[in-house]
Amino acid sequence: MPKRRFLIVCHDADTDGCFNLDDLPGSGGRIDVAARCVVAGLLISYGVRKDAEILLFFQRGPRPGLTIRISGDRVKYLNPDERSTAALIRNAILKHKNAGVLESSPGVQVFRSDLETLLKTGRNVYYLKEDGIPAENFVFPEDEILFLLGDHRDLTADEESIVMKYARAKLNLSPLSLYSEHCITIIHNILDRKFSGSPVPENRN
Amino acid sequence: MPKRRFLIVCHDADTDGCFNLDDLPGSGGRIDVAARCVVAGLLISYGVRKDAEILLFFQRGPRPGLTIRISGDRVKYLNPDERSTAALIRNAILKHKNAGVLESSPGVQVFRSDLETLLKTGRNVYYLKEDGIPAENFVFPEDEILFLLGDHRDLTADEESIVMKYARAKLNLSPLSLYSEHCITIIHNILDRKFSGSPVPENRN
Repeated sequence: MPKRRFLIVCHDADTDGCFNLDDLPGSGGRIDVAARCVVAGLLISYGVRKDAEILLFFQRGPRPGLTIRISGDRVKYLNPDERSTAALIRNAILKHKNAGVLESSPGVQVFRSDLETLLKTGRNVYYLKEDGIPAENFVFPEDEILFLLGDHRDLTADEESIVMKYARAKLNLSPLSLYSEHCITIIHNILDRKFSGSPVPENRN
Repeated sequence: MPKRRFLIVCHDADTDGCFNLDDLPGSGGRIDVAARCVVAGLLISYGVRKDAEILLFFQRGPRPGLTIRISGDRVKYLNPDERSTAALIRNAILKHKNAGVLESSPGVQVFRSDLETLLKTGRNVYYLKEDGIPAENFVFPEDEILFLLGDHRDLTADEESIVMKYARAKLNLSPLSLYSEHCITIIHNILDRKFSGSPVPENRN
């Protein structure tokens, strides 16, 4: 059962943390997408995926490169709704004062990085993209996988050229173009079925 | 390519429409689950699934049996975020005055019904449930399918006995117990791949 990590390139999400929880798509620069990716990546019914990790890589605003890492094996206070997940993200952004790695709440770390540095942490990087090869027939490594995907916007050509230096393959999940959070749900399901027989994750919180 | 309909039994969602958009899980009786099911069922990246329909069957509050039908081929003002989707649902609840079928906004209809009547509208009913047979190997009918699933709670024994009078099979999607909206995403993906010509996974490893 490979550890599953998801790196989401958030193009518009702002890094000043001043967004309004009542208007996540607008004031938050589509922070709603980031929140849904966190939930899809880490939560199942009455449990947390202990073997999963989300990396939100924020591009815009005063602190481009701000990165939030949420680890399934340690996260607390994560619920399935968008608003409370966005509040957890906002808390991380607001607490970070530009210095090193801060743990803003249990299992939520915030730091600054760049795309290449983040990709170098991935032992087996796969890029989820419409023009990839079908993921459902793919033979995945069994130790650790880092899936990279965009948010509501595709990667830029520059971003893609960095990613392709590290990606072992581009993987396609559907004949349709899907939301990022739905891609995460589908790739989890492929791996859950492929590596079934695993223990059920423990209860959360 | 079958038309896909999803009937979600919402056990706790209130039917007085007085819930607070700032507290969907609490005040709304997990209306957040219903909102996410609508998005998973109807939206893809930059598009609506014209061949899909969501039925939210609300059980609680002053008007049990209140049902909201959202049709992909006609819906407007549907966005991917939870709050605005919940507002669309709340608008439907508030506008309905107990009489017949009301179209509260384009593609959103509200009426009162019961579970058995709703199931009778399904030409091919399948019940998504952990103890079913694997969906990825299943041969689906090509005309129309009605998938039934619970929200954050399982169906009661009484509900299940009604469902099993109409269901052609129970289908399982994962070795894990998943959120309802994630189940919808996965079943859509199976059908998207099945009816696009690309193969679905043959077997669990």
